[in-house]
Amino acid sequence: MSASSTSPLIRNAWYAAATSAEVGRTLLGRHLLGTPVVLYRTEAGEPVALLDACAHRQFPLSRSALVGDDIRCGYHGFTFASSGECVHIPSSPRIPRDARVRRFPLVERHDMLWLWPGDPALADPSRIPDCPWLDGSAKVSYYAHLRAHYQLLIENLLDFSHVPYVHHDQQGHPELARVIPRAREHGDTVVSTRVMRESSTPPLWSDVMGLPLGASMDHDQRFEFRAPSAVCIRQAVWASQDPGQRYPFSTTHFMTPDGCGATHYWSWVSLEWEGVDPATLERMDRGAREVADQDVVALEAQQALHDRLRDGAVAHGVVSVPFDAGSLLTRQVLVRMAKRERETAPEPRSAAS
Amino acid sequence: MSASSTSPLIRNAWYAAATSAEVGRTLLGRHLLGTPVVLYRTEAGEPVALLDACAHRQFPLSRSALVGDDIRCGYHGFTFASSGECVHIPSSPRIPRDARVRRFPLVERHDMLWLWPGDPALADPSRIPDCPWLDGSAKVSYYAHLRAHYQLLIENLLDFSHVPYVHHDQQGHPELARVIPRAREHGDTVVSTRVMRESSTPPLWSDVMGLPLGASMDHDQRFEFRAPSAVCIRQAVWASQDPGQRYPFSTTHFMTPDGCGATHYWSWVSLEWEGVDPATLERMDRGAREVADQDVVALEAQQALHDRLRDGAVAHGVVSVPFDAGSLLTRQVLVRMAKRERETAPEPRSAAS
Amino acid sequence: MSASSTSPLIRNAWYAAATSAEVGRTLLGRHLLGTPVVLYRTEAGEPVALLDACAHRQFPLSRSALVGDDIRCGYHGFTFASSGECVHIPSSPRIPRDARVRRFPLVERHDMLWLWPGDPALADPSRIPDCPWLDGSAKVSYYAHLRAHYQLLIENLLDFSHVPYVHHDQQGHPELARVIPRAREHGDTVVSTRVMRESSTPPLWSDVMGLPLGASMDHDQRFEFRAPSAVCIRQAVWASQDPGQRYPFSTTHFMTPDGCGATHYWSWVSLEWEGVDPATLERMDRGAREVADQDVVALEAQQALHDRLRDGAVAHGVVSVPFDAGSLLTRQVLVRMAKRERETAPEPRSAAS
Ligand code: FES
Ligand code: FES
Ligand code: FES
Repeated sequence: MSASSTSPLIRNAWYAAATSAEVGRTLLGRHLLGTPVVLYRTEAGEPVALLDACAHRQFPLSRSALVGDDIRCGYHGFTFASSGECVHIPSSPRIPRDARVRRFPLVERHDMLWLWPGDPALADPSRIPDCPWLDGSAKVSYYAHLRAHYQLLIENLLDFSHVPYVHHDQQGHPELARVIPRAREHGDTVVSTRVMRESSTPPLWSDVMGLPLGASMDHDQRFEFRAPSAVCIRQAVWASQDPGQRYPFSTTHFMTPDGCGATHYWSWVSLEWEGVDPATLERMDRGAREVADQDVVALEAQQALHDRLRDGAVAHGVVSVPFDAGSLLTRQVLVRMAKRERETAPEPRSAAS
Repeated sequence: MSASSTSPLIRNAWYAAATSAEVGRTLLGRHLLGTPVVLYRTEAGEPVALLDACAHRQFPLSRSALVGDDIRCGYHGFTFASSGECVHIPSSPRIPRDARVRRFPLVERHDMLWLWPGDPALADPSRIPDCPWLDGSAKVSYYAHLRAHYQLLIENLLDFSHVPYVHHDQQGHPELARVIPRAREHGDTVVSTRVMRESSTPPLWSDVMGLPLGASMDHDQRFEFRAPSAVCIRQAVWASQDPGQRYPFSTTHFMTPDGCGATHYWSWVSLEWEGVDPATLERMDRGAREVADQDVVALEAQQALHDRLRDGAVAHGVVSVPFDAGSLLTRQVLVRMAKRERETAPEPRSAAS
Repeated sequence: MSASSTSPLIRNAWYAAATSAEVGRTLLGRHLLGTPVVLYRTEAGEPVALLDACAHRQFPLSRSALVGDDIRCGYHGFTFASSGECVHIPSSPRIPRDARVRRFPLVERHDMLWLWPGDPALADPSRIPDCPWLDGSAKVSYYAHLRAHYQLLIENLLDFSHVPYVHHDQQGHPELARVIPRAREHGDTVVSTRVMRESSTPPLWSDVMGLPLGASMDHDQRFEFRAPSAVCIRQAVWASQDPGQRYPFSTTHFMTPDGCGATHYWSWVSLEWEGVDPATLERMDRGAREVADQDVVALEAQQALHDRLRDGAVAHGVVSVPFDAGSLLTRQVLVRMAKRERETAPEPRSAAS
């Protein structure tokens, strides 16, 4: 019986809320961990995340007006500063003491905005997943609102044996499934590594790295799940005959549950060797998009089936094989984090606002 | 925490079911207070409301045939008189005693049909909201199937501080929010009055009354919520310099919950001064439609957010200001009516049919 | 109060899963009794039904690849033989013992595939509804995914008093409702017979049998409900003056609940006299389609109303007349079968896989 679709949400953690480019002087409403959030930047460029619900009668602030650094509610004009404090009520000179909306900790890093939906006292920015390779390198990005539980996405990313089947046209060398990764935990991080020697260069890497199609290729991978919201895959490939010319690259994946069963999914591919030209980046962008779209289609089909089976009358098992060690560890880490959060904050609702 | 979306339905009351013009010699099916109702007129013009479910196997009578004054069911031909009694069964000369459908009390008044969904013994027509100004005056009408709880609509109508924000293009004088109405209860009615002096004439009233745009204008308003299904707003405006030439008008609003979370919303604007010409009425119609559409958009956005927040993990408060006194009274009246109904009729289902 | 929409599903029975022609060398996914099933044929033509969920991570096998007689999962390539056994795992030479998917008993008969969703030990093919007239005769077929509970369909088929109303254009002789059928039970079968003399030939039978429109016609009918999944109606008509020239025909109906409130509905019309020409069969096909479509529209309207009424606040009765005897017996048989199944298999879920 799969536990994946029913894992509880973890609130005391940093989650990707948007790319830096998405948030500016327009109000952006987004549902994150079951919470409506409105995102914008002050005139000075500081990013702000507030609860997307006016303190008066709960009209969406994202459907209101941005006036300087403040939001003026579109219903009766209550105005809130970027701190969340109400600073003006058209019909009343006196402002009630509890007239404010919750402001969420929000930190900009690596072209992403990171939001902490849980207890603000615990929001330590040093716990944001550190991805220095995202700064400065040639990179392409992808976003999808994935109608699947975020744990299915994590397991997809940790289990690369799916590549020859889901992505057979782009990266279809079946050898990928034969080399079993080595997986282990470090606290709330799961690391899985894999060394592949003398596999056949598939179309995508042939195009991007310029290796001859089908030529013997070596490939190192290091998967890191930084629970609960990031999977970083540091990789390198090279022609087996030319180990001196390595092509290092990373795929970095952020997953943020929307709280309604779907997941905000961002992914970046960074090409980390010198002299990546625009045409190569353009080919990478196209390939990354096709690959990610294939994952989305597969995961949504899997989720739809899980939803059916949950209420069904037929018993069904789930078997695992050694290759699954990494993804099974990610489940354990998530269950443990959720349990820990439940025990330390028995009443998250009252602590939250 | 807003109680608005969870207020219980009140069944022992008159509710607008349709306009007079909507109901004729065609069967009209409509869901009112969770009950499917079929509406039509007899050959003599008498309006009839029956439960929209055949007594045999519960086929919708609104998808059946009107034969003279009777409905012949579209499934097996059982035929029901306008009294609800079964008068013919094709396959059986004997008609079972309980072969009848429920007929609802229905009264035509002020170009509307009023239905009593509760205990028929209590259906006193004198309790229909009396709106004599609707008879005879120049008027325009509006209808929407509003996907929001009816109490949100009532609060919208009682709280005119939304006008400069939701309707800023048509009636946008911010002074409207500054004059606090005086609200009080009379039994199940909430009355709120407001006197505005020397505000600036907005585009809509300038066009309709012919006052110069932006000129100083006086405006009296009297809001009356006749629980649970009508809000009547009697108003007058005039140029501040010419108090002798008053322009009296009324906006009359009927709200009927469909029982599935949405609301049938009818509104009328009556221009009650002498000599309203067709062009003025046409301008009023356009303006009233734009204003009502703006309210519908805002209320549906508010309801969608409330639905999200109800299951959400973030605590959120609702603050009120003096301007909200009227709308807070409407909540109290509704809660009290529902409580009274529950206590006097502990088993509404068995009493109902 | 109608019990029809809430009757429990019966799992230990044969159900139509597809027509023979629908299933071939392409994977077909279908939901039957709340269970996702994948259907295909081996290279030798044998029809196969497996649970449509990979044993590894529950990816839909119907969105996978058919390779010879095996299905190779579209996610990580686990490969399952037609027995349901896993025969290959790309990443693992060892195949875990429980790596298999459930195979359902499936029998081909009368151009249909019959599936047994319950305990395989009880799947006796001699219990498949026997319809020899479906083999060889001139026949036409119909399929709809009917958004109504299957019991509403059974009652429709047993209660021919609906014909003059639902099908008034094709078969509209009101005499049909006047002759009450004689209904009785034989174990889990309900039989209802009816003899009509000197009714008026309606358009459809006039066209198909070549009888003069409106001429006096005799009509014998024998309805047989073979619980829970088949209704067979053996019939004959002839001109009242020419009893020697009979036109025997059958309408055969299979209903399989999908487990989500809707029903897979197949029906066949077999013309059983000698020398039916293609034009006659084409006319029959058109007529049968129009008639079945009318039933589908009526049943979906009835179901939509039942869904509304179930949560409604208005009490409503259901009255029955002598004509309903047959359909009332079908309810009793279904309730009894479900009770029997519950008592003999107290834990169907654990017994199932
Ligand atoms: S709901 Fe925002 S000001 Fe009233
Ligand atoms: S359902 Fe109306 S007559 Fe049978
Ligand atoms: S889900 Fe089928 S092989 Fe993994």
